Parts: sequence; structure tokens; C-alpha cells
Amino acid sequence: MSLNSFGRVFRFTTWGESHGPALGVVIDGCPPGILLHAQDIQAALDKRKPGGSKFVTQRKEPDAVKILSGIFEDDRSNGPRTTGTPISLMIENVDQRSKDYADIRDKYRPGHADFTYDAKYGFRDYRGGGRSSARETAARVAAGVVAEKALAFVLGADISIRACLVQMGPHKIDRARFDWAEIENNPFWCPDAEAAKLWEEKLDAARKAGSSMGAVIEVVASGVPAGLGAPVYGKLDADLAGAMMSINAAKAVEIGAGIEAAALSGEENADEIRMRNGAPHFLSNKAGGILGGISTGQDIVARFAVKPTSSILTPRKTINAQGEETEILTKGRHDPCVGIRGVPVGAAMMALVLADHAMLHRAQCG
Amino acid sequence: MSLNSFGRVFRFTTWGESHGPALGVVIDGCPPGILLHAQDIQAALDKRKPGGSKFVTQRKEPDAVKILSGIFEDDRSNGPRTTGTPISLMIENVDQRSKDYADIRDKYRPGHADFTYDAKYGFRDYRGGGRSSARETAARVAAGVVAEKALAFVLGADISIRACLVQMGPHKIDRARFDWAEIENNPFWCPDAEAAKLWEEKLDAARKAGSSMGAVIEVVASGVPAGLGAPVYGKLDADLAGAMMSINAAKAVEIGAGIEAAALSGEENADEIRMRNGAPHFLSNKAGGILGGISTGQDIVARFAVKPTSSILTPRKTINAQGEETEILTKGRHDPCVGIRGVPVGAAMMALVLADHAMLHRAQCG
Amino acid sequence: MSLNSFGRVFRFTTWGESHGPALGVVIDGCPPGILLHAQDIQAALDKRKPGGSKFVTQRKEPDAVKILSGIFEDDRSNGPRTTGTPISLMIENVDQRSKDYADIRDKYRPGHADFTYDAKYGFRDYRGGGRSSARETAARVAAGVVAEKALAFVLGADISIRACLVQMGPHKIDRARFDWAEIENNPFWCPDAEAAKLWEEKLDAARKAGSSMGAVIEVVASGVPAGLGAPVYGKLDADLAGAMMSINAAKAVEIGAGIEAAALSGEENADEIRMRNGAPHFLSNKAGGILGGISTGQDIVARFAVKPTSSILTPRKTINAQGEETEILTKGRHDPCVGIRGVPVGAAMMALVLADHAMLHRAQCG
Amino acid sequence: MSLNSFGRVFRFTTWGESHGPALGVVIDGCPPGILLHAQDIQAALDKRKPGGSKFVTQRKEPDAVKILSGIFEDDRSNGPRTTGTPISLMIENVDQRSKDYADIRDKYRPGHADFTYDAKYGFRDYRGGGRSSARETAARVAAGVVAEKALAFVLGADISIRACLVQMGPHKIDRARFDWAEIENNPFWCPDAEAAKLWEEKLDAARKAGSSMGAVIEVVASGVPAGLGAPVYGKLDADLAGAMMSINAAKAVEIGAGIEAAALSGEENADEIRMRNGAPHFLSNKAGGILGGISTGQDIVARFAVKPTSSILTPRKTINAQGEETEILTKGRHDPCVGIRGVPVGAAMMALVLADHAMLHRAQCG
Repeated sequence: MSLNSFGRVFRFTTWGESHGPALGVVIDGCPPGILLHAQDIQAALDKRKPGGSKFVTQRKEPDAVKILSGIFEDDRSNGPRTTGTPISLMIENVDQRSKDYADIRDKYRPGHADFTYDAKYGFRDYRGGGRSSARETAARVAAGVVAEKALAFVLGADISIRACLVQMGPHKIDRARFDWAEIENNPFWCPDAEAAKLWEEKLDAARKAGSSMGAVIEVVASGVPAGLGAPVYGKLDADLAGAMMSINAAKAVEIGAGIEAAALSGEENADEIRMRNGAPHFLSNKAGGILGGISTGQDIVARFAVKPTSSILTPRKTINAQGEETEILTKGRHDPCVGIRGVPVGAAMMALVLADHAMLHRAQCG
Repeated sequence: MSLNSFGRVFRFTTWGESHGPALGVVIDGCPPGILLHAQDIQAALDKRKPGGSKFVTQRKEPDAVKILSGIFEDDRSNGPRTTGTPISLMIENVDQRSKDYADIRDKYRPGHADFTYDAKYGFRDYRGGGRSSARETAARVAAGVVAEKALAFVLGADISIRACLVQMGPHKIDRARFDWAEIENNPFWCPDAEAAKLWEEKLDAARKAGSSMGAVIEVVASGVPAGLGAPVYGKLDADLAGAMMSINAAKAVEIGAGIEAAALSGEENADEIRMRNGAPHFLSNKAGGILGGISTGQDIVARFAVKPTSSILTPRKTINAQGEETEILTKGRHDPCVGIRGVPVGAAMMALVLADHAMLHRAQCG
Repeated sequence: MSLNSFGRVFRFTTWGESHGPALGVVIDGCPPGILLHAQDIQAALDKRKPGGSKFVTQRKEPDAVKILSGIFEDDRSNGPRTTGTPISLMIENVDQRSKDYADIRDKYRPGHADFTYDAKYGFRDYRGGGRSSARETAARVAAGVVAEKALAFVLGADISIRACLVQMGPHKIDRARFDWAEIENNPFWCPDAEAAKLWEEKLDAARKAGSSMGAVIEVVASGVPAGLGAPVYGKLDADLAGAMMSINAAKAVEIGAGIEAAALSGEENADEIRMRNGAPHFLSNKAGGILGGISTGQDIVARFAVKPTSSILTPRKTINAQGEETEILTKGRHDPCVGIRGVPVGAAMMALVLADHAMLHRAQCG
Repeated sequence: MSLNSFGRVFRFTTWGESHGPALGVVIDGCPPGILLHAQDIQAALDKRKPGGSKFVTQRKEPDAVKILSGIFEDDRSNGPRTTGTPISLMIENVDQRSKDYADIRDKYRPGHADFTYDAKYGFRDYRGGGRSSARETAARVAAGVVAEKALAFVLGADISIRACLVQMGPHKIDRARFDWAEIENNPFWCPDAEAAKLWEEKLDAARKAGSSMGAVIEVVASGVPAGLGAPVYGKLDADLAGAMMSINAAKAVEIGAGIEAAALSGEENADEIRMRNGAPHFLSNKAGGILGGISTGQDIVARFAVKPTSSILTPRKTINAQGEETEILTKGRHDPCVGIRGVPVGAAMMALVLADHAMLHRAQCG
């Protein structure tokens, strides 16, 4: 069943609820001998963690990660290294405020999983969304760091995986101004400095109005060699689609030209090929670096759209567990745009899918 | 690894190349006691099969299915019924013309998997795209018939799964004219009679110009109860995204409002809930029938975009296996819009994902 | 790959090394709504834990379990109940004495996995056997408690799963004296009071001589209905064989008559069937309660043989990591007969396999 | 669920009933570029096939295999080679005599799966045991040929996998006379020429008396390097145990010293290590070539015991589907000792497990 696991040979399983004592991830199948310091994982978690700006939830979580197994260090190992056994990572929850959630015990918040959990399980941990909380993504980000190291180790090359926000609400970036260097300069991971200014204004207004905004995240992996993936159900793009759609609030996934591909003609869409520096070079990348489910050696480009946060300060019509009509207004500490925190999560999922496929490829093709 | 399998408990594995002797599928985990006639599968294959109009490939394949295992009939069984053991379905290939493909033995067709297969496997069956041929989807459609029966059997209810083309090239249907009854009246599965006329004209022009067009397919499942799915990696929408993106030429997948959700405000997006006839009723369906990865009881709505056929009669720049620059023009019999044949495939994948989740739900929640 | 996971729908993953900070297990797929108190798990761990008598390792581990996720309790839940999300259990390691193991850093202990770990991974956590330590079985016992509850919940019936030692070294019990009530009266889980006395004498002598003894464990599940399992690779007995052989030091697994079945005639072996109290009743149980991979409704009987502990106080010929011949004598705290601690582990594995098959059966057959 | 699949990365799925039109296997994950002629598979099937002597069933099946996918040959490929896509193998059933089985439609044969199938599925194909027929093992033998080639290809070395019968009924071979060259000289795959003579006499007597005999099969893999396997649930021996126990009629599995290990002392059991020709050399092989779940580089030795054929010409007490007590005498064509035909099946399962682990090792450790 493995409903909480992902990956085939580089495989991880996450556990934990928003308001339980901790959350974590177990990674199975990681190659042995890889240097892995807790601080590398911590650095990634610090980038993702809540409380960083007024545009993300004000919950204060240190998100301190502990490595509980799977690494070993002695005076000859030159640092802590993976042993090839399961890597267990744990992050304790510190700032739970259960009282905030008493109101949603019986009322189903529109756009949330409250109703569906009850329909499925007949019983739920309603505090902070339980298992559906965005806190689960901390485990993905932690696992993503290990995946990125494993990917470089297996391929013998550094792969660059970057992610950014390319749209907030209806406001898209201007591709002509796209600059990866900008994403650290604003609280949105926005590669377009001017768009970032507009977004700040728009999101602040939405936040003050008790509303929220959606977003589109783009993830790009550079340096991935041709040959990762498989033709049918194990397609690299099919796995990326499943991975991205599994992120909280995701409603769409695109590869390369994505939904725009439908409007192109065959000549516009199929990327022509030339040789450059003795290697195949594609004259465009409508394919997003994947043909027939297998990487082409070009940048792998995936995007996913996330809906606006459903927890808003505006009263909404709903029903309660007793089947009575009522209203709800979601208090508590929430992200006005969950897409922002989705950026490192998207990058982590790309790393996890690629690490898995790099190992699968080695298994089958040496 | 299971790169050619899909599903967790209702699980199928497809096999076969475009120009091999046959193709097929093995379905494992089907409940016992379900009536299954070969002609039911045949009827679905007949709808999908090539050669139906000038808008699909002129390859003539009878696509006659044989059930090789997993059913049993005697004088007391009241028809052939599934036994709970693997159901093996085979379709023989009849109309292969291998000579048509001699040209692509060394030249990589832009937009095709020729280059990536060689990069991965170092060796390939280049006839008709081998494993990446759209012929593989016949196996999916056949399995989808079994899935639809299993789904109804497990849920004790008829679930309606329908699919249509909602966009061809840049031309979208008019939602105001949407009528399911129309899809049988035109060669495009188009629910808008007027759009169908326009598409006919446009696709004919593209075909004559040696070009091709992309499309968007919409798949809707009605009657699915609330509670199917799971919160994190086993999300119903994540599985649908992987399923749809695994279809040939797919470049994007959407659930409900899809990519448009990014542009909505929190109030616009979250579907409000009321009671109607004693049951929860959502006032809109931006969620596409899925919240937190679990079905809400509303229509489940998924869409996927397919790129325009890459096999076109216009010469394109490419390289050959020896790393020399050259040109290619893809002769042979091809679909000017592969999206048309993707319609029944999308419906089949929806049935396969739902059957799997219906059984998973029964496993865990009774 | 899932090399550290077991089960299909009731699936668990263990992690942790002998001398790491902790070990644990994540259980995925457990049904929701089951009462689960930490003290129930603790009670099972206390029975298994080291330090209980002079016949098991003197390492003092409290083996205190924490439930980190997957349960929820409020004023209406009538106790902590499973939510259907992953159950994460953690046991901290307290009494590691790493200095004891400095000697085995380079020398390969005969009968241990030291050499094979280095051959596979090129790097290992040599402290206490790392991942191959019997401490890993604490995680299995903890998961087994959850499995036993899930099994009863899914089947709607109490299933009794019991295990005992039926042979120590060459000394078998007398079947005529078999009494389940005796197993709590001696430190060996021996159902034959007289055999227990002999074993005490023999094992004490072996321990004082710096030697060790093997054992055979029998596990019996009563009350399991007919119909769990599957015909070919998902056979109930095949899964039990894999489960039992995965226990540390196991070298053989038997079902029912086991290896003795080879010496029987067809008439002696095939269990005849009569009706008793309106239900099928087998006149013998050579089959061990399984026919064609599916349970018959009789007691399910499995046995596994464990080799004598390889850590002994007698010097043994070996080599070191540099390929030089040398000798080793394994100091440290060890079990003179690991089979004793294998008894609750065998029972846990039976529960885990049955819970998985009970849920699989429900998925496919309702 | 995958109840009819086996393996993780070299994964196969079998399908087919005794009296259906055909049976087969789909192999997924095979490396590309391996020479694979249908006649290689045919040669192995011919060794296994029924009708070879009076000691096996008189059913006449040509067992002609067809390769339906996954290989490709052209004028440059130097023979048919695997492409890395699924390999589908089919064997048609020819000599079904359904009328022979009319009697067992309602009566449950003792020792057979008739009763358990009805208990599980409520419906069954009763002809020839349906899915539980030994005919399913033809698919395993066919897959085993591919596995053996993949194993040699992945390891870059020829691995010798041999199997023989070491016990028939209560009659064991004399290990002092063990000679692999003898196994082709008698109808039992017996490595002891004298034992073979005795067995012929005993089995002929059993056959004439309407009885049957059990057997023990030994499978030995030579040349496997150290390092294949994994520490806990993915143990090489655990996978072998599951594989061997999945063979029809198997009731016990042993690795190395097997059940005898329980009676040894620690000194007797743990294999000491020396250097020989610059490589580690074990002074004995009680471990059967596996320590901590990982191969040691010694011969891998597994044994499995099969019960005597349950289909005998002696009347037995049983019940029918209506719950009435009755008797049954199994006519039809049966093996007096199914263990004989189990010999190539055991070798095939060893090859399948090793191919899987060789690829898994490559995935994780390069």
C-alpha cells in the first residue's frame, strides 16, 4: 500500500502530525559512504521554516533535525557518512497551540481535508490539519537534502536543482527579467525583482483583507544526463507529476511547455537537434528535458500550481459533523500564500525523484 | 522497480511493442466473481482503435482481444466470471509495416523518444516507436474495462466515467454548449457541436499541411463516494496525475480548477458546503472532487494536455546515432492529433486509479 | 527496493543501529479507530528485553517506547486511537558501551555479518553489529503489538498467537508434555517443564565454557479463519517463510509437518476432512493450517531454527580488513542462546504477516 | 498487492491456469542488450516438462514457448537481444482433459487447495487445480533462464546454479557419493547413483500402490561474489526462503546447515576464515554462503522439502461444497513424486532471486 512512502529504490516514508510530539522521515536505500552532516539538513530546513516573514505562518518552530540512524563516524571516516542502512530523521514539534483548533473539531473548513478525513477514517486528529498540515513538508525537505547528495554521488556530477515562484495570484513574472540570483533577495523566491515588489503589495493587501493567494512554482534541474527514466508507467515525468501533485494544495503539474503545448503546432513543439561541442544540443526545450519518459540531457523543467490557502479570516458556509449547516472563519496562524513555502518542497521532490531514477538506471543499465 | 506496472492492489502490467507479434496486459488483484465477457473489452477497444476516421492513423488493426486467464465459466456460473487470479489479455499486432521505419533506424526524430532510448538502453526496437508507440494504450483501455467493472463491484454502485476533448490546438470548447450527448456525434469526442465543426476544418488543414495539433482531454467520474484516497503520497490526485502524465504525449495534468486555481482568491477557490437531500453538497467544485487527497463525493474532474504529434511531414533538423547533423521527415501512418485517441485512454486511467483506491479503502477502512 | 520494510498493506519499516541514539519502526496502513496504549506495547517489550535472566545478554536497556504519531485522543475518543496515518514508534538506546567493540573494528567475527557488510558497503558501523544487532527485533515486537490489535479489529475476532522454544541445542521437548501454561514458568518459554530443567543445566554449562547453543522456535496462531493468503507468490506460507528467515540467526523455516513431510506417504500427509459442529474439521494438521498458500481455518503452525550465537568466548580463526590472518575472541555481553529472545519476535512476525493478509483479503474479497 | 509477482527490480509476474488456453510470465526490469534465443528457454522447459518418464505426470504438453515482446533483432544486432522493456513469454496449453476433473467440482481433495480457494474466493476454476497447478512452474522455469542470463550479464561472470534431489521419501543420498555429473543419468536428478536405484524401486512401488512420496531438493549457486543481499527484511536468505516456499507443495526451507544448525555449538557452527590465493576463504560453509543476509562469496546453498503428492489413488475422507461428508479418490494423471519436477523450479527461483539482488546491489552500491 505504502501510502506514506515515495520512490522505488531511493525510498522514503514520512510520519507525523501537525500537533503530535514530532514528525520525521525514514530513507531506505541510500548509497553508503556519502558525507552527511546534520547541519546540511538544518540549513535547508531553516530556509523553509515558518516564521521567516509576515508572509508565512507565524508559528515559531525551530525545526531542529536529529539524525537517528544510518550514519557513522569514527576517527578514520573523515566525517559522518551514510552506511547504506535506513536514515531516520526526526524534527520535534515545539510551538503547537492546540486550543486554537477547538473550533474546527466539528466544523468542516471549506477547502480543507476535514470533511474527507471524517468520511474516510470516521475519526481524525483535527489539530492543525493533522497529517495534512504543511508541517509534513519539513520531512520532505530534509529527505531532499539526502537525495541531492545521493544524486550527485551516484551520477558523479553536481546537479543543480533550483526552484522559484513564477506566478502569484494572477500576476506572472516577466520571463525577460528572469534572474536566479534574485530569488534570495525577496521573501517570495521570485526571480523577477519587479514582480516581487508587486507581489509584496498584493499579498499584504490580501492578508489584511483576510484573504489569500495561489501561486505557480517552477523547478529546474540542470546537469542531469540523458537516459534517466523509463518508457511507460515509470516515466520520469509521470513520477514528477505524482511527486508535485502530492504537495499540499497542488492542483496542476506541467512539464516543459506544459498546458501551452496543446496550442502549439507539431513544428513549434518538437525540439530540433544539432551537435554542439561534440554533444547533442536541442534548439529549444518545449519537452522540458524529457522525451518518452526519459531525460534528454537538457534542463528538466516542471511547474506546479497551488491553490490559495483555504484558511482565511472571512466567514464561509459549511456544515458540521452532525450534518447541520453553519459558518466558519479560520483563526490561527496561517500562510497567506502557501505557495511560498512550497518552493523548497518542489525542489526537494525533484531531487527525490531524480535520485530514485539515477539508482534505477544504474540497476538496469549499469 | 515495476516500471511497467501501475496500481497498488488493483495492479496491472502492460507489455508489447508496436511491431512485435502482440501486446497485452496482466491484471493482478481483481476481485473474484465479476462477470467479464471478452466482447465488453472488445467494444471499448473498437472505440479506441486506429483507422476509424481520416483524423487518426490509417494503420488497420482489428485489435481483437483474447482473455488468456483469470476467468472461468461452467454451466452453473451464469457467464464467465473473474476467479481472483491474474487476468491476462492479449491483442495481436496484424498490420505492421516494418519497412516504413527503415529511415528512423539511425536518425532521431525530434519530439520522439528515439534519442533517449539510445541514451538509456544503447539499443532499441526502432520500428514504430517500439514500446513508446500509442499501441501500448490499447492494453490500458482493455484493463480499464476490467477496472470499471471491479470499481462498480467493490463500491456496489455504478460509477460513470466519461471523457471528452475540450480543446484542440488553441481552440477551446464553449462550456455553455457542453453536452455529453454530443461526443458520439463527431470524430473528436467533442461535447460542443460547434467547436467540433471548427476543429474538423482546422485539423484537416493541419493534416494537409503536414503538420499536427495538440489537445486537452477532460475526464469526469461521477458517483464516486467520499473517502477514497489518502493524505500524503497515496493521494487520489497524485495518483491521477501520475496516471495521466504516463499517457503518451501528455505534458500537463490538472485537477478541478487546475492551473487557474493559482489566480483565484481563497474565497473564490474553497468550495462552500451545504446540506442537500440530507447529504453534504458543495456549492462549487473548484477542488475537482478531491480535498487532502481524498474524494469529496463530488464529480472527480481531471484534465491532461497532450502535445501535437511529433511525426509530421515537414522536414526537421536532427542528428543521427553517429552524431552527425541531418534532417528527417517522418513518413508512415500517423495521427494528426494524438489527443483524439487519448480520450478513451484517459477514461481508462481514471477507472484504473479509482478501482485501486476503492480496494485500498476497503483494505484499510472496511 | 524497500529493503527495510515488510508487508503489503499493513506495512512497516524499521530503522536503527545497536549503538545509535535510538531505533524504531513506522507502521503504514493500520486501520483507524483502534485503541492503542503505549503501555500495551511496553508490556510486550518488557517480555523481550535483555537483562531478564543470566541466559540473555546483560546489556541493560529499559526499552521504553514512545508513540510519536498516528494516534489521537480527546475527551470523546475513549482512549488513544489509531487515526489511519503512519504510526511512528521510537525506543532510545541507553546502555551502549562502544569501547567493548574496538577490537572488532578490523577483525571479522566468524558467523557474523562484519565481513559481508564490508564486502557490500565498503564501510560499516561496527559497534555491536550495527544494523544486524538483535536490538532491531525490539522494533518488530513493538510493531507486532499493533499488528495483533489490527488483526483482531479487521477479523472481528480474537486471534491467539503464541510462541515457544521446542528445541535447545540437540534437546527437543517431549510433545506429550506440551503445555502452553508452562512457558511463563521458565526463562526459556519452554512448554515442557522437564525439558526446561535439562536446558537450564545444558545452557549454563555452555555459557561457562564460553560456548553457545542453537534452538527451534514454534509459533502457533489459533482462530484464524479459512481464506487468508493467495495461490502463488503471495502465499501465506511463503510470506511466513520470508518473515521467519528474516529474524536474526534463522537458518530454517518449517510449516506444519515441515521437513518431516518429505518422509511421509501421500496418505499420511494429506489431512482428511470431516464436519464437526457444522463446520469443516481436519482430522490432522500436517499442512500447518495452510493449503495452496491459503489458510484452512486450522491452527497455523510455523517453526524456525536459529543457529547458536556466534559471539563466543573461544578464540576463532579469522582475517582482518587488511586481508591478514588472525584470531578473535568475542568479548562483550551476549546471549548464550539467541533463540530465547527469538520467541516473542517469531510471534510478532506471525502477527504482522496475518494482519497484512487479513487486510489484503478484505481488499480483494470484501 | 502484487500477489502474482516476485522480485524487486528484476521482477516477474506469472499468469495462467492449468486448463486455460495458455500460461505465461512478464519479466520487467531486465537489462538491455542480452542475447536471448527462444531455444534457450525451450531447452530448459524441455527438461522440466511433464511426460518425460513414468515417474512424472503423463500429461503430454509440448510446452512450446513464444517470446512476445522485449527482444529485438536486426541485421546489426548479432542475434535477438533484450531491449530493457517487458519480456512477455507465453506457453500454450494443449493437452487439457477437462472431463477428468468433473468429480472434484464439489468435493475437496485432501491436501489440495480446493477447499481454501472456495473459502477465499467463493468461486474457482476446479479443472486441474486451476492456478495452483504445477503447470504454473513452467513460467518460473522460463523466467529463470532470462534471470540466469541477466545475472551473468550484471555480474560479468558466469554463475553456476545447479539443483538436485537429496532425499526421496525417507531415503537420503549418501553425501560421500555426491556427484553432480550423475544427475543427468537418472530420472530423479539424483547425484548419488546408488540412491537413484533405490528410489526407482521405492517410487515404482508407491506409484503402483496408488500412493506418493515427498522429497528434498538442494539448490547450489557457485561463483556468486560477496556482497549481494541486505541486512534485515531484504535478506538474501529471507528472499530465498520466500521464493522456495512459494513452490508448489513446499513445506520447509533450509539455508546451509539449516535445521541442523540448532543442534550445533557456537564453535561448530561459525565458519572460520583464512586467506587462500589472496582471497578470503571459509574453512566450512555452515552458513550456506550467507551471513547477516548478505552473500559471503562461498557457495549459496538452499534446500526445500516438498510433501508427497496429494493426488493419490487411495480413497480419502473429505467433505463437499455442500458440507456433506464423503470420500474421494483422485484419478487423472499425476506425479507420484512432485519433488522431481521441483528440481528445475528450485534452480529457477535461485536464479531469479540472485538476478534481483545483483541489480539491487548495483543500484545502491554501484
